[in-house]
Amino acid sequence: MITLTTDFGAGSPYVAAMKAALLAGCPEATLVDISHAVGAHDLEAAGFVLWAGTRHFADGAVHLAVVDPGVGTERRPLAVQLGRSYWVAPDNGLLSCLLRESRQQPEAVQLQRPEGASATFEGRDLFAPAAAALAAGARLASLGQPVEDLKRLPEPTPRVLWVDAFGNLVTSLKPPVSGVKLGPVSVRRAARTYGEVGQGELFYYTGSMGFVEVGVSGGRADELLGAGPGTAIQALGS
Amino acid sequence: MITLTTDFGAGSPYVAAMKAALLAGCPEATLVDISHAVGAHDLEAAGFVLWAGTRHFADGAVHLAVVDPGVGTERRPLAVQLGRSYWVAPDNGLLSCLLRESRQQPEAVQLQRPEGASATFEGRDLFAPAAAALAAGARLASLGQPVEDLKRLPEPTPRVLWVDAFGNLVTSLKPPVSGVKLGPVSVRRAARTYGEVGQGELFYYTGSMGFVEVGVSGGRADELLGAGPGTAIQALGS
Amino acid sequence: MITLTTDFGAGSPYVAAMKAALLAGCPEATLVDISHAVGAHDLEAAGFVLWAGTRHFADGAVHLAVVDPGVGTERRPLAVQLGRSYWVAPDNGLLSCLLRESRQQPEAVQLQRPEGASATFEGRDLFAPAAAALAAGARLASLGQPVEDLKRLPEPTPRVLWVDAFGNLVTSLKPPVSGVKLGPVSVRRAARTYGEVGQGELFYYTGSMGFVEVGVSGGRADELLGAGPGTAIQALGS
Repeated sequence: MITLTTDFGAGSPYVAAMKAALLAGCPEATLVDISHAVGAHDLEAAGFVLWAGTRHFADGAVHLAVVDPGVGTERRPLAVQLGRSYWVAPDNGLLSCLLRESRQQPEAVQLQRPEGASATFEGRDLFAPAAAALAAGARLASLGQPVEDLKRLPEPTPRVLWVDAFGNLVTSLKPPVSGVKLGPVSVRRAARTYGEVGQGELFYYTGSMGFVEVGVSGGRADELLGAGPGTAIQALGS
Repeated sequence: MITLTTDFGAGSPYVAAMKAALLAGCPEATLVDISHAVGAHDLEAAGFVLWAGTRHFADGAVHLAVVDPGVGTERRPLAVQLGRSYWVAPDNGLLSCLLRESRQQPEAVQLQRPEGASATFEGRDLFAPAAAALAAGARLASLGQPVEDLKRLPEPTPRVLWVDAFGNLVTSLKPPVSGVKLGPVSVRRAARTYGEVGQGELFYYTGSMGFVEVGVSGGRADELLGAGPGTAIQALGS
Repeated sequence: MITLTTDFGAGSPYVAAMKAALLAGCPEATLVDISHAVGAHDLEAAGFVLWAGTRHFADGAVHLAVVDPGVGTERRPLAVQLGRSYWVAPDNGLLSCLLRESRQQPEAVQLQRPEGASATFEGRDLFAPAAAALAAGARLASLGQPVEDLKRLPEPTPRVLWVDAFGNLVTSLKPPVSGVKLGPVSVRRAARTYGEVGQGELFYYTGSMGFVEVGVSGGRADELLGAGPGTAIQALGS
């Protein structure tokens, strides 16, 4: 099992090239696309989608993540083991959310660039072959030298992390809170589902990923509040 | 074989979470995405895409469909058997087109909510595990109590059901007709393919799904006619 | 292994119908989507994505490509063998880039239309069954009569072939060049990666697909230069 998370865009031949490299190295692999539209300009938000999209996969899965504005620069290419699963990604902070949410101690190695690897497409020539090797049973230690001090972005200030297809705001807050303040608007109505509140009413709830979310019955909270990934928020106390 | 049809948006971590649940319950499953962009505001149109996208799959396939504006409310979660294939979906009318087009008598059970299922993400915690169980060989009757009177939307008035990527209008009409009227425009030219009509000429034909469609050679019928899903039409008699 | 490249749009039930036909004919096949958003109005650009997306797959892969504005007209449906891999596609020029880039001599047959095939959806009824048969081990010669003189588009004049998700321009030029001229702008700065140039600086480089590309550090070259697929360019000599 190998999942893919990139910012290459759906339908990009770069994604196809990575899949070819994955299947060349591990023909038996089941490939699952997480997203190819995560925003590279916001590695915290990209890392949230990576964490949220990969967290339910079974032990032994390999998660390939290439969101890499610094390709070709000196940031380290990594393979990271958490529990019995693997993440293969650049050491640029993309794994911050995952490392924060996991209770496991990460083990990591710095991948070695193969001879002749493209300077601009390490996804195909470096990351995908490493992910395929892990999926085919290679041990982490065989892929490179151990490294520590993985790059972690600073703990995010309270903010919107992601907006789902229905306009619900997934925030960086964890329960319990007594409400959420976005700009001038305080959302103090708590509910478990849309069915509990009146049409057009804003409410907050603990979403399926364990974070506090803000929705509005019969509408889109992102449009109503003019909010999106990165919008600053405040937790309301009791 | 398990197919997925949702309104979660391509690249959503919710889709990934459902796939993880499917593969946890049935590791051998082949997953096929039908669409993650069907419109929840129009369950008739969403149901058309579900029917059109799943109808060619072989006996034994399991089709997971989560377009569920009423998640968390009292509508029943279902598993439905038609012939030797299965559809797992909320009982909100989404299966209307399928039930109308099928000659098989449906058998259905009401799924039981597992302990600890998220109130807002039954796709992951309720529907996907049920679909995986069916794909792994579970019998329908093992998943819940039999139910009847599945919710069916009223037979749609003549309308555009779906617009394909080329702008062709798939209507709810079945042949034979002598033409299609959309607003002030009557399309009376019949053809089998684009090649038979002149550039810019509107025509109607029986599409690959058995419904009457309207196209225009060298252009987009949706733009030319200002039509989209839901646009009212009339069948022209002889 | 079967890949799919179409202009049907992501989430189209037509793609699902083709996958059902592929899996009916070859249940063991691994399906990989290359793109369902290639532009039919530009068969040269569509063919570039097809070549770029399929070139890394292993020997024996079958590549199904349905970008077919002339469906239902007299263009021939083809299966083409290059080395030990196969492309199944209409004979409308879509394979031009592939045939130009390959060093192999193509062998091709004209597919036979099955009885009852839809006039408007040969992807499902003609191309997909042929691709499945090849994936299941059928020999090329069993699918139809040999044909020669495959349709090839004229060698493209220097132009932008494709724009990636980051705004980089993939041109039709091969190295070595001493720069690229787009309209009034001459790009004479060569670099290997973004890290080598200053913020906002335009540069050219040999991309991961072997073509000359134009990028800008910290920005989008397509927006900066107002360029897209089809934009005329000039190679700068030394």
